[in-house]
Amino acid sequence: MLEKVNLQRMIMKDEYKQESAGLKLQLANLQRAMKEAGFPVIILFDGWGASGKGSMISDIILTLDPRGYKVYSTLPPTQEEAKRPFLWRFWNKIPAKGQFSIFDRSWYQDVTVGRIENGMTDEQAFKKMDSIKTFERQLTDDGYLIIKFFLHISKKEQKQRFDNLESSKNTNWRVTAIDKKRNRQYSKYYVAFDDMLEYTDVDYAPWHVIGCHNRNSALSEIYRVLVKEISKGIQIKKEKDLQAQTTALPEIDFLSRFHLVEAPKLKEIDLDRTLEEERYKDLLNKEQKNLKKLHNRLYRKKVPLVVVYEGWDAAGKGGNIKRLAASLDPRGYEVIPISAPTEIEKAHHYLWRFWQGVPKAGHIAIFDRSWYGRVMVERVEGFASPQEWSRAYNEINEFERELRSAGAIIVKFWLQIDKDEQLRRFQERENTPGKQWKLTQEDWRNREKWDQYEEAVDDMLKYTSTDFAPWTVIESQDKKFGRIKAIRTVINAIEERLL
Amino acid sequence: MLEKVNLQRMIMKDEYKQESAGLKLQLANLQRAMKEAGFPVIILFDGWGASGKGSMISDIILTLDPRGYKVYSTLPPTQEEAKRPFLWRFWNKIPAKGQFSIFDRSWYQDVTVGRIENGMTDEQAFKKMDSIKTFERQLTDDGYLIIKFFLHISKKEQKQRFDNLESSKNTNWRVTAIDKKRNRQYSKYYVAFDDMLEYTDVDYAPWHVIGCHNRNSALSEIYRVLVKEISKGIQIKKEKDLQAQTTALPEIDFLSRFHLVEAPKLKEIDLDRTLEEERYKDLLNKEQKNLKKLHNRLYRKKVPLVVVYEGWDAAGKGGNIKRLAASLDPRGYEVIPISAPTEIEKAHHYLWRFWQGVPKAGHIAIFDRSWYGRVMVERVEGFASPQEWSRAYNEINEFERELRSAGAIIVKFWLQIDKDEQLRRFQERENTPGKQWKLTQEDWRNREKWDQYEEAVDDMLKYTSTDFAPWTVIESQDKKFGRIKAIRTVINAIEERLL
Repeated sequence: MLEKVNLQRMIMKDEYKQESAGLKLQLANLQRAMKEAGFPVIILFDGWGASGKGSMISDIILTLDPRGYKVYSTLPPTQEEAKRPFLWRFWNKIPAKGQFSIFDRSWYQDVTVGRIENGMTDEQAFKKMDSIKTFERQLTDDGYLIIKFFLHISKKEQKQRFDNLESSKNTNWRVTAIDKKRNRQYSKYYVAFDDMLEYTDVDYAPWHVIGCHNRNSALSEIYRVLVKEISKGIQIKKEKDLQAQTTALPEIDFLSRFHLVEAPKLKEIDLDRTLEEERYKDLLNKEQKNLKKLHNRLYRKKVPLVVVYEGWDAAGKGGNIKRLAASLDPRGYEVIPISAPTEIEKAHHYLWRFWQGVPKAGHIAIFDRSWYGRVMVERVEGFASPQEWSRAYNEINEFERELRSAGAIIVKFWLQIDKDEQLRRFQERENTPGKQWKLTQEDWRNREKWDQYEEAVDDMLKYTSTDFAPWTVIESQDKKFGRIKAIRTVINAIEERLL
Repeated sequence: MLEKVNLQRMIMKDEYKQESAGLKLQLANLQRAMKEAGFPVIILFDGWGASGKGSMISDIILTLDPRGYKVYSTLPPTQEEAKRPFLWRFWNKIPAKGQFSIFDRSWYQDVTVGRIENGMTDEQAFKKMDSIKTFERQLTDDGYLIIKFFLHISKKEQKQRFDNLESSKNTNWRVTAIDKKRNRQYSKYYVAFDDMLEYTDVDYAPWHVIGCHNRNSALSEIYRVLVKEISKGIQIKKEKDLQAQTTALPEIDFLSRFHLVEAPKLKEIDLDRTLEEERYKDLLNKEQKNLKKLHNRLYRKKVPLVVVYEGWDAAGKGGNIKRLAASLDPRGYEVIPISAPTEIEKAHHYLWRFWQGVPKAGHIAIFDRSWYGRVMVERVEGFASPQEWSRAYNEINEFERELRSAGAIIVKFWLQIDKDEQLRRFQERENTPGKQWKLTQEDWRNREKWDQYEEAVDDMLKYTSTDFAPWTVIESQDKKFGRIKAIRTVINAIEERLL
């Protein structure tokens, strides 16, 4: 794409002043319209060193209300960031509804400059670009607007800018040996940038390549793009919101892009399996010791483990998690309880809060309920639209694939009991003073929708049992049996990986 | 304090089981009572290596509902953390109302182990302990409970535990050369721990030193302390809440613990100073260039700068900030707009959200409104009780002193206009289509309370003008004059430091 860019375009100062004043006013108005419409916008600036990214961003943010944007400079990942999937730090920085996130360099650094300098193979680079495309598609599907600028200058222009910076004692520290090396090897970087631009120029998030020899010309082009894309985006959002109110339920016609493994239907599960107290105690003791040893090994090998607990109310998730966690070192695991999203969580993509909980290398995250709420409670209660929840099977598989690509072991449990057993447990809670707080009106309401939930769970097991993150049904009618099975499943998953 | 600890205490397994079962049940109930009462609790475990911190925490958290606690392991600070005041990372981790934060090692690491191993002088160590005491006092003043455990074992016991860990191939990686060195130099660390325990054993956050040769005995003591302290804390909180409803307004009888510099009263400020357009443009251009150079130098010298903007509604904060920011590199500064606190912010100490915005070394944070809301809007509108806001002058000075101790330059502006000028600007906003959004009903309501605000501002200027963070009044009746004065004040403050 780079060869098509006109680098010679110029604009006179007066003309620029006049034009840009109008555009800036429009942008300021659009920011308020964005806020009203709850429309989130990501703007990213990538491009050559010394192409003027900082200076362009500086100009833009002076036009904006500081309550509505955040600027993020992308440096090489910190130690903490490097221990997690490479998109983790960017997921954490997506804007809330009505807000801007502005990136000075972005997730594209890693697959361009990083591709050359960190000795990445082509295959690795394109795999990462696939992850990036998925990331951007998930966001735009959810209504985010992503505006991507690539700031282009020629080798000669870049050299001259570096020379200028070097000639002043206030700015010479800004030009490093690596900058100069990059200028000498301009053509090598050119290929990497061009590959990236071609491969990631997708219709839902196209690139805007800006010739930057003349700052005013570049800036006015950038303002025009911003005004045009944001106006259009708000317009489309309003139309979609209107449509959503009137559209009939779509049939789920789900074509998985993943290899799915077979999953049982809830009705077919044999719930008669039990364990006697004595045998249970022996097994629990033995398996907890095994798990403790494996936790040490996970930590040393720097393998992260994600355990997901889902299941009926009163199926015994809490007690099961407790037995699993009892043998783990608290410095190396975290139980992440998921309840209804907060206002701030609701103002972001639904996967945002789960990305935050992704464990670092060598650590264990145990999710007590999880992102699967999207295709269960949010589906059944109508908190997510049919478009949203039916899209989510694929999004969730993509999310888990990212975890897997970063090395994670993923274990997912569905704790199964039957409807009679649930009633027995509800009544027991009701009648035991120390347990009454565990039972809420909501539990009774959910119970009334048992059949709808069962359908949703069957779909979930069917559509999200991938070979890298399969579901395990835990027969929890006998809690003791369920606890041993869960611990053993985790042990097997770790052993399989560490062998 | 260590010599008084009985290390020989033992308890039989059966006795422990019986006793602890009851205590655990009480603790689980207290956790729910804490939640209801909105009572936040910090539990920290410090002590010798291999004294059993992890194992104790593991036991405790299995008793708790995971929705109500977070465990934090304190490692040496990351690169990002090391660029900020040393308490920054702990402030970020204080619990919300009704929640536990549990620390495995804590802010005391730095002044014990760190004191020996990082070559800290005694003066530095005790200064840091003063900061720690202030931190703990601010939290407990605000209703937090801090329970501090020090786990104690003898040199011989520690050696034996290291030997045991080393003898198994699953755990030998846990014992490092530094651990063994610490054991050999046990007496040196003993002195550092003992100094720390003596010096920081304050009535609002006393130490509980636990002999840990026998795990069961230690655990039962820990559970007893937790149950006793949390029950007492909830009780006291309830009484205080009741009292607060009935107590009369106290006189502000403020005895500053800081050296205060003289501050003007608002009524005495000469607002007639103006700048002509031509001269303004020249000066602005010149001073922005100066500031740009200084920003580079700040960055290189790794000095953080905090700029606080306060002032009357319509005093011109936004425009003033814009002129200041125009010459700054967006990668090195952030405008932090402060509005009413969110629910999550309200559930924490009021300084919590401001601590998060503390800039890292070499960066600039511009606060558009700030922590001074506590002694202005929260005082006038009654969002803070008289006890709370009158205490805040001291708390704020302490906060700013922490910033200063970490190397920050602090510049604080009060933008002053008179009441007539405010009316003119309100009316102009009302009559200008592009500006109407800037004027809200709240602005008119605040205006009605001009005199009350004036009194609050005069108190604020008087009680928080310290020599390390003095207030500068910006005469903003003529906006142009105000902008130049603000930039120059920042320039002077930087130059003074960098000379």
